[in-house]
Amino acid sequence: MKTEIQNFQRARSLEAKELRETAILNAARTLAATQGVRNITLGAIADRVGMHKSALLRYFETREEIFLILSGECWLEWSAAVRKELTEFKKPSALQVSLTLAKTLTARPMFCELLAQAPLNLERNVSLAAVRSFKLTALNEVKLIASELKRLKLSSRQAIDIIATATSMAGALWQMATPSPEVLALYRNEPQLAHAVVDVERQLTQILAALIAGFLIEKRRQRLPVRP
Amino acid sequence: MKTEIQNFQRARSLEAKELRETAILNAARTLAATQGVRNITLGAIADRVGMHKSALLRYFETREEIFLILSGECWLEWSAAVRKELTEFKKPSALQVSLTLAKTLTARPMFCELLAQAPLNLERNVSLAAVRSFKLTALNEVKLIASELKRLKLSSRQAIDIIATATSMAGALWQMATPSPEVLALYRNEPQLAHAVVDVERQLTQILAALIAGFLIEKRRQRLPVRP
Repeated sequence: MKTEIQNFQRARSLEAKELRETAILNAARTLAATQGVRNITLGAIADRVGMHKSALLRYFETREEIFLILSGECWLEWSAAVRKELTEFKKPSALQVSLTLAKTLTARPMFCELLAQAPLNLERNVSLAAVRSFKLTALNEVKLIASELKRLKLSSRQAIDIIATATSMAGALWQMATPSPEVLALYRNEPQLAHAVVDVERQLTQILAALIAGFLIEKRRQRLPVRP
Repeated sequence: MKTEIQNFQRARSLEAKELRETAILNAARTLAATQGVRNITLGAIADRVGMHKSALLRYFETREEIFLILSGECWLEWSAAVRKELTEFKKPSALQVSLTLAKTLTARPMFCELLAQAPLNLERNVSLAAVRSFKLTALNEVKLIASELKRLKLSSRQAIDIIATATSMAGALWQMATPSPEVLALYRNEPQLAHAVVDVERQLTQILAALIAGFLIEKRRQRLPVRP
């Protein structure tokens, strides 16, 4: 009887722990969506869940761990969305693939922000286990998207380079496109700084379309018989 | 006479100020080169120059201002080096240009680190004047490199997209290639994580070569007469 009660209590406490963790992640997601990842402190997340910061630290080690978990979730969600769109094309063209990658990424501002933040900040202030779990998730999604891209007759290596460029450039261009309001006003008002204003979707599509076209001629050249 | 003395004193103090500023920038550069930009605090820079942190703040507003100035210097130095190498080719090929861009960037680890840090952190914690001065420097160097790239028969827009990809990807890939030693060991020891190990120069060259090849066919297609 004692064991059964213990099991019940353990289950109850595990369930309570999971509920708490979900509440914390939800709070971080909501705050980041409205105020941007960079501006969200651990204290703000704790406030929103209605718990003390020291209590929150029993569930997650650092602010970075919370956002690294959200990055993993974003990878899963984006990957599913982009693969769904890609499968809908009977025989996708380079331009269709570029547009799909650029559109689905820029439609996810929080993911773009996390893509730039992950290697710089998030992967550095967490446990090895947290980095490992995030990396396994991201690499697995890269593999899944890459096999979808191979329908364009690209090699695995080329498909992976395309995904690396799409996600890294989305992260970098997004950061450039969203400076502080004062800096953005400066860019807009000073003709010499006009080039500092970035249109992420347009520039990302252009770059990806050329990259894919370039990889396709590379493949075609490799298939040509070697001249004597 | 009084004015002459005042002028002399003003010149002396201006000179002293400049000497101090140079000493601070040199200290930051040396520390960043050995320990990485991310690890250098304002306190560490002050210690190295042998002044108190509060005294250092009379010369620079923030740690970010110091590193944004160093970013501007890095742009000037890299731009001169890459343009010199490019002019040495009589008729540069897409592969030569890609290799030159990738090699000159990866040979400058501090610049790669600053390229990723600038839009995320450095441009955000400084005055408008500091952002303006940095942006004008960087955009001007982009323009100079772009006119060198146009020898490949690329449009201005394409040349700018190539430089944006080269510098943003150098920043992003460099961050991925240099995680903490523990994380790097994890990547190396776990077969599932093998793809997380990044060879910046090789991957950057591959991507840039395909991008340039892709832009070149785009240009060629635009030059073809429109079919009736």
